[in-house]
Amino acid sequence: MKEKYSIGVDLGGTKVKVGIVNKQGRIVQKVSVNTFAEKGPDKVIAQIKEGINLLLKTNKKEIQGIGIGSPGTVSSKRGTVENPPNLPGWKKVHLGKIIQKEFALPTFVENDANAAAIGELIYGAGKAHQSFIMVTLGTGVGGGIIYKGKLFKGEFGGAGEIGHITIDYNGTKCNCGSYGCLETYLGNKYVIKNVTTKLKKNKTSLLYKLTEKNLKKITPKVIHEAYLLGDKFSLKIIENLGETLGYGLASVVNLFDIRTIIIGGGVAGFGKPLFNSVKKTIASRVLTPMRPHLKVKQAKLKNNAGIKGASSLVLYQ
Amino acid sequence: MKEKYSIGVDLGGTKVKVGIVNKQGRIVQKVSVNTFAEKGPDKVIAQIKEGINLLLKTNKKEIQGIGIGSPGTVSSKRGTVENPPNLPGWKKVHLGKIIQKEFALPTFVENDANAAAIGELIYGAGKAHQSFIMVTLGTGVGGGIIYKGKLFKGEFGGAGEIGHITIDYNGTKCNCGSYGCLETYLGNKYVIKNVTTKLKKNKTSLLYKLTEKNLKKITPKVIHEAYLLGDKFSLKIIENLGETLGYGLASVVNLFDIRTIIIGGGVAGFGKPLFNSVKKTIASRVLTPMRPHLKVKQAKLKNNAGIKGASSLVLYQ
Repeated sequence: MKEKYSIGVDLGGTKVKVGIVNKQGRIVQKVSVNTFAEKGPDKVIAQIKEGINLLLKTNKKEIQGIGIGSPGTVSSKRGTVENPPNLPGWKKVHLGKIIQKEFALPTFVENDANAAAIGELIYGAGKAHQSFIMVTLGTGVGGGIIYKGKLFKGEFGGAGEIGHITIDYNGTKCNCGSYGCLETYLGNKYVIKNVTTKLKKNKTSLLYKLTEKNLKKITPKVIHEAYLLGDKFSLKIIENLGETLGYGLASVVNLFDIRTIIIGGGVAGFGKPLFNSVKKTIASRVLTPMRPHLKVKQAKLKNNAGIKGASSLVLYQ
Repeated sequence: MKEKYSIGVDLGGTKVKVGIVNKQGRIVQKVSVNTFAEKGPDKVIAQIKEGINLLLKTNKKEIQGIGIGSPGTVSSKRGTVENPPNLPGWKKVHLGKIIQKEFALPTFVENDANAAAIGELIYGAGKAHQSFIMVTLGTGVGGGIIYKGKLFKGEFGGAGEIGHITIDYNGTKCNCGSYGCLETYLGNKYVIKNVTTKLKKNKTSLLYKLTEKNLKKITPKVIHEAYLLGDKFSLKIIENLGETLGYGLASVVNLFDIRTIIIGGGVAGFGKPLFNSVKKTIASRVLTPMRPHLKVKQAKLKNNAGIKGASSLVLYQ
C-alpha cells in the first residue's frame, strides 16, 4: 500500500511554516513563507495557500489531509479562528472551509497549544499515555489536556489554558488582563526580563561573558549554555523556573488528577535541572493520594513541533 | 407504580446522618447517630449499619439503593475509602461491599464533595446544566466537576480538588502540605481566624455587639447577621472572600472552560454580596473569550445536603 502523508501548517505571527509529514511524524519536505500579518486576513490566507502550493508543486506524495495549528480561539468543529493575538483584523475567519475548498482535502484547524498536545499523543512522548497534561513554554505558555485519548475541550472548546492559571493573585499583570498568571513567570519575555534584573546583582555570572556584556543577547539558549559551563547563577534561574512551573502544575494535577506531564517549547530545553525541579515541586505540593505515578517528561517533538503538531490533526480525527 | 426511595448516608467525623430520600430529593425521614470515629473503622461501620437499620425498622418504603458520601479518597468503582482525614485507623476499607452485603441493596460510595456535585446535578441547581463546577465551602473547601452530565474523575478518580489550587505560592501553609491553597482562605477555621485578627482594628463593627465581645462566638452565620444589620466591616469581609474565591475559580474556568459555577456550604449562605463579588472577579480575570455565558449560582441543596447528595448516587448510576 502506498504510504500516506499529511500537510501541517504552523501559522505564526511572522512566518507560516508548512510541511509534508509522514505517519511517524517525520517531515519529508517543508517551506516557510512570510505571514504578512499586518496586511490582514486575506493576505495571510493567500500566504498559507502559497506555502501549501509550493509543497504540492514539487511533491507527488499522496496527501491525506491538511492540519492547521493557529493562535487565537479556534472552534475545531467549525474550523473557525477568532481574534488571534498576533494577527490583526481577523475577528472570525472560516479558515478550515477556505483551505478545504481550495485544495479539496479534508482540513482540520486547532489551537496551536492543543495541536502540540495532539502531536505528542500521535507521534511523541504521549504515545504511551491515554491521559496527560501538555504545557508548551514559548513566547506564551500554552496548554492542552489529553484525557482518555482525546483532547479535553470543555463546554465551549477553550479548555487547557494552563498559562493563565494564577499562582499569585497579587502578581504581575498579564497580557490577558489577569494577575500572576503562570505565563508572567515563564513566558520568554518575562524570563529574560527577570534574568536581566537579577544579573545586576550577580556580576560574576558567565552570562556576562557569553553575551559580551550585552544583556540584550540573553535568550533561553544562552542561559542553558552558561548552565552547561557550570554557571551557578544560571542553574539557580533554571531551578527557580522549574519550581514556579511546579506551583502551577500542582494545581492542574489536583484538578484533573492526570499525573503525566509533558513539557515542550524552548524553555523545556533546559533539560534535567528544569525537569527535576518541576517534579520535586509538584510532588511536594500535590495532595498525598496523587503523589504516586507522577511523571514529568520532555516533549519529543522539538524542531518544527508546530508543523508536526498541526499535521497530527489529520491522523487524530 | 409505587414510588421508589434511596437511602443517603452522610459520613462525618462526629455524626453519621442517614435519610430516606424521594426522587425529587426531599428527605422523608432521617436519623443521626454518633460516628465514634476514635474507636476505629469497625465501630464506625457498626454505627452506619445502626443508622440505616433505625430507618428501615420504622419505614416500609421501597428502597432502591444506598448512597454513601465519605471523606477521604474514594474509589467509587470499588467502593473503597482510603485515609479519611477525620476517621483514624481506616487505611483502606471496602465500605461499599460491606454495606451492600449487610442490606442486600445496591450501594454506591463517593467522595463527599463529589456527592454534593452529583446531588446538585440530580436534584438541584445543576439540573439545567450538562457541565458545571461545584465548590462546597465548609470546614474544608471541596470541589466536583460535572462534565457532559458525568462526574469528571480524572485518570485515577481524584479530580476536582478545587480547595487545593494555589492562589499564592508563598501563602499560608495548608493542611495538605502545600501553600496558599484556596482552602487556607475559605475554610471555616481560616475565615474565622482572619476575621478575628481584622476585628482588632475595627472596634466599631457590630460583630462585637452580636458576640457580646466574645470573639470565640464568631461564625459565618454571625457575620452574615451583622452584614444584614448594615455592618460595613462584615460586608467587606464577605466581598473579600468572594474575590479570593474568584481568583481561584478563574483558574478553574481557564482550565476546564466550564462556565457555570455552583457554590454550596455554609459560607455560600452569605448570599448576594458573596456571589456578586465572585462573579465580578471571575469575569475580570478569565480569558476574554470565556467571559460570555459565565454563571455563578447558589447550590439548591442546603440543609442536609450531605444526605441528599449521598442519596443521589443511587439515581446517578
